[in-house]
Amino acid sequence: MPSRNDPFSSPHQPLDAEAFRRAGHALIDWIAEYRETIEKRPVAHLPQPGAIRAKLPAHAPEHGEPIAKILADLDEVVMPGIVHWQHPGWFAYFPANSSYESILGELASAGLGVQGMLWSTSPACTEVETHVLDWLVHALGLPERFLSTSAGGGVLQDTASSAALVALVAARERASQFATDARGIGAFGRALVVYTSDQAHSSIEKAARLAGIGKEFVRLIPVDETGALRVDLLEAEVARDRALGHIPAFVSATVGTTGVNAVDPVEEIARVCRAHNLWLHVDAAMSGTAALCEEFRFVNAGAEFADSWCFNPHKWMPVNFDCDVLWIADRAELVRALSVLPEYLRNAATESGKVIDYRDWQIPLGRRFRALKLWFVLRSFGLEGLRALVRDHVAMARELAARVRGCDALELVVDAPLNLVCIAHRAGDDATQRLIDAINRDGHFFVSHCRFHGRLILRVSIGALATKPSHVRALGDFLLAHAMQDIATPAESRA
Amino acid sequence: MPSRNDPFSSPHQPLDAEAFRRAGHALIDWIAEYRETIEKRPVAHLPQPGAIRAKLPAHAPEHGEPIAKILADLDEVVMPGIVHWQHPGWFAYFPANSSYESILGELASAGLGVQGMLWSTSPACTEVETHVLDWLVHALGLPERFLSTSAGGGVLQDTASSAALVALVAARERASQFATDARGIGAFGRALVVYTSDQAHSSIEKAARLAGIGKEFVRLIPVDETGALRVDLLEAEVARDRALGHIPAFVSATVGTTGVNAVDPVEEIARVCRAHNLWLHVDAAMSGTAALCEEFRFVNAGAEFADSWCFNPHKWMPVNFDCDVLWIADRAELVRALSVLPEYLRNAATESGKVIDYRDWQIPLGRRFRALKLWFVLRSFGLEGLRALVRDHVAMARELAARVRGCDALELVVDAPLNLVCIAHRAGDDATQRLIDAINRDGHFFVSHCRFHGRLILRVSIGALATKPSHVRALGDFLLAHAMQDIATPAESRA
Repeated sequence: MPSRNDPFSSPHQPLDAEAFRRAGHALIDWIAEYRETIEKRPVAHLPQPGAIRAKLPAHAPEHGEPIAKILADLDEVVMPGIVHWQHPGWFAYFPANSSYESILGELASAGLGVQGMLWSTSPACTEVETHVLDWLVHALGLPERFLSTSAGGGVLQDTASSAALVALVAARERASQFATDARGIGAFGRALVVYTSDQAHSSIEKAARLAGIGKEFVRLIPVDETGALRVDLLEAEVARDRALGHIPAFVSATVGTTGVNAVDPVEEIARVCRAHNLWLHVDAAMSGTAALCEEFRFVNAGAEFADSWCFNPHKWMPVNFDCDVLWIADRAELVRALSVLPEYLRNAATESGKVIDYRDWQIPLGRRFRALKLWFVLRSFGLEGLRALVRDHVAMARELAARVRGCDALELVVDAPLNLVCIAHRAGDDATQRLIDAINRDGHFFVSHCRFHGRLILRVSIGALATKPSHVRALGDFLLAHAMQDIATPAESRA
Repeated sequence: MPSRNDPFSSPHQPLDAEAFRRAGHALIDWIAEYRETIEKRPVAHLPQPGAIRAKLPAHAPEHGEPIAKILADLDEVVMPGIVHWQHPGWFAYFPANSSYESILGELASAGLGVQGMLWSTSPACTEVETHVLDWLVHALGLPERFLSTSAGGGVLQDTASSAALVALVAARERASQFATDARGIGAFGRALVVYTSDQAHSSIEKAARLAGIGKEFVRLIPVDETGALRVDLLEAEVARDRALGHIPAFVSATVGTTGVNAVDPVEEIARVCRAHNLWLHVDAAMSGTAALCEEFRFVNAGAEFADSWCFNPHKWMPVNFDCDVLWIADRAELVRALSVLPEYLRNAATESGKVIDYRDWQIPLGRRFRALKLWFVLRSFGLEGLRALVRDHVAMARELAARVRGCDALELVVDAPLNLVCIAHRAGDDATQRLIDAINRDGHFFVSHCRFHGRLILRVSIGALATKPSHVRALGDFLLAHAMQDIATPAESRA
């Protein structure tokens, strides 16, 4: 007779340890099988809106269901609505690598189920995080001011959006000498101004709106032909705002823009920041990982002048989402801007001043043991393993870029230095759109788009852990064949 | 000869599928073993600050390490710095239940590794979430205006802190008619005011500071003897602020305060909100789960008037952190306050208006498939299983409360209606502190404290999945014995 908790026979009982073992093993195997066979699936075939919901009952079950049925619904209900971000043909948006190692780290974190809001609520949760983020300062060749042993330090956030928001709030308080923290921006009497390029991530504008600064005080500075922020125009805007009586407070420079992976001139921006007492934040969300390799350390230029710097191991470094690292040069400012200490959180360790309480470095109070997955990845890959990954992706991008350059129908729009290839059809936006549609209909690949200086761009973002040179070559073959065909086919004969 | 990827023999290679299977099975077993034997560990024995870091090498490894070694370090490095939140003797802070089901859900989410920022980036991620949050509206008996089929809807956030922040930002824009979104609070000319009780969670003040409203415009309204917000004082403050030319904008009512689990009179507060056009947010972080049971639906009183309502399945409902549900009565306001649409995120599904893009309902852009774990838990437990859990915990709390009431040395400070027992020693704060220290030194239990009307309170929060009546009885025995002994022992003979 089967046990009451046998996941494959008995309903109506939450799992016990033995049933968890069996279901957990089955799920681990399911994940491995999914990843091993992922290439057989079309990368992104979307269902009709509502089709997934239609498979679900109108109400939550009154009585428990067997875990085997629930796991089976991953195939039945969930998979038809999954876009395969881990597919080797994933060239859209950004890489969002969920490596086996990071899955294990996430699993261990869920298994422990501890809170890291205070050092004292699980010291390992805080200390492993602090330590691993110090490791990364060295591994990426970032300045020592970001080490926890200096006045700065690192903290994990969910995303670069949240990192930008907390950095901006600290900057706001520096600029207003904590008057806005006390009495609000309304009582401050002067507008604080945020600067970033018109190619910066949408999260910068969002952060400024969340922080009460307002859309109109976000200056989206135009970029040069490579997509990099024009420092002359930044300087002019800062001067104009000062003349108007506003207070320039914050610049977010981008190292690797979302659209075309452009790199802002951080050192020159830093000069403007120093001259006008602006907080310099750097968003290196995807490209920051490249600094693992000496030859790509140009992404760190100017880091020594940054007040805050973030990058996402959950993008190109293979740590599953969510995992953003924010480093700060002066942790005291951040902590002062974010700290509230109610009685129920008081404890001896905090009062000793000898520990870090990360709750004061982020928006939420609670936090899970997110550093485990980063620790697992850094150790299992080793730095040389991670560097090999970066170098391989860059080499694949360069090979594709060379093929595009050699194709009469296509234009390589920007000479991207890293893992992004930006392509336009010489026949114009319509032809580029047809190319994007053809690729995405095919099912072997998935790409996304952007606009750059008004022009539609087909972006090939190369960074999935599963992507091998053969996948990029197959995309190149497809791309070149269709691009030439599009020229050859008269417009009226197209579907 | 062992394969290059055998986790138990071969270093220097990231995991392949086969090695992941073996390591994953081992880790699942480790988690089951940890949970099965957790009771043998002291709940919270803290190491010296720095002791965990001292076990780690100064730099990240250059060459990859075998996964077996990394997993072994969970025991060697991590466990000595873990406070056991899943222990049956966990009576501190709040329950943070990481059930086996939710661990599997988190694992499946990491295994799929998809982004749910847009419907189109993985439709299942959005649709399962929308659907399961509709299930919960019914399951908890909340008003229909929170259903996605109405003008409202639900969305998962990491925590109640983030939920409060986005609700406050939407409220800020309603109050200023989107003038602050456009030109900042600074340009608005009048102060916006936030109201909550002096027993409310610290996240409300934090949200107001993040949103640029300022500490001085957060009115912490005093509470009555039960810990509930005094509506007469709220009304007086609102009137005073209006007389001063300020704009009352937002009230956060608490259903189950952190300190003593008091319930604000939401219906009466709602009357004030309607009269003065204030946004009503309700923070039911822990106690919201109680509404699964008809007899505890008093926690929903006034919900039909709330503009936003949040509770944390990651507390008492056994879904591992992080998982907060935010319901909103008018999603259009929230989306307008949080939406930024750059070209690279444009897509046909979004433009059709037929889908939800949850990126516009939260602070970050990216989001993982967090609904899976909630779906797993609701299905495996069934509603009756979850109700049984809630009822058991409340019964345990009532039994303990009765024992405290019967003890001459102790006072039951508030008659908590749910799963929290608030205790003081009749001999005063010092005796209460000694009691807390004695319990926490013992190792079988862990409790935390708060202050209430100036008095030190020993909080017994009952809600861990592993807690059985025997554990609460053992705590009661310990508590009563030590409380009586403290009275019997002359002060000068204490250590």
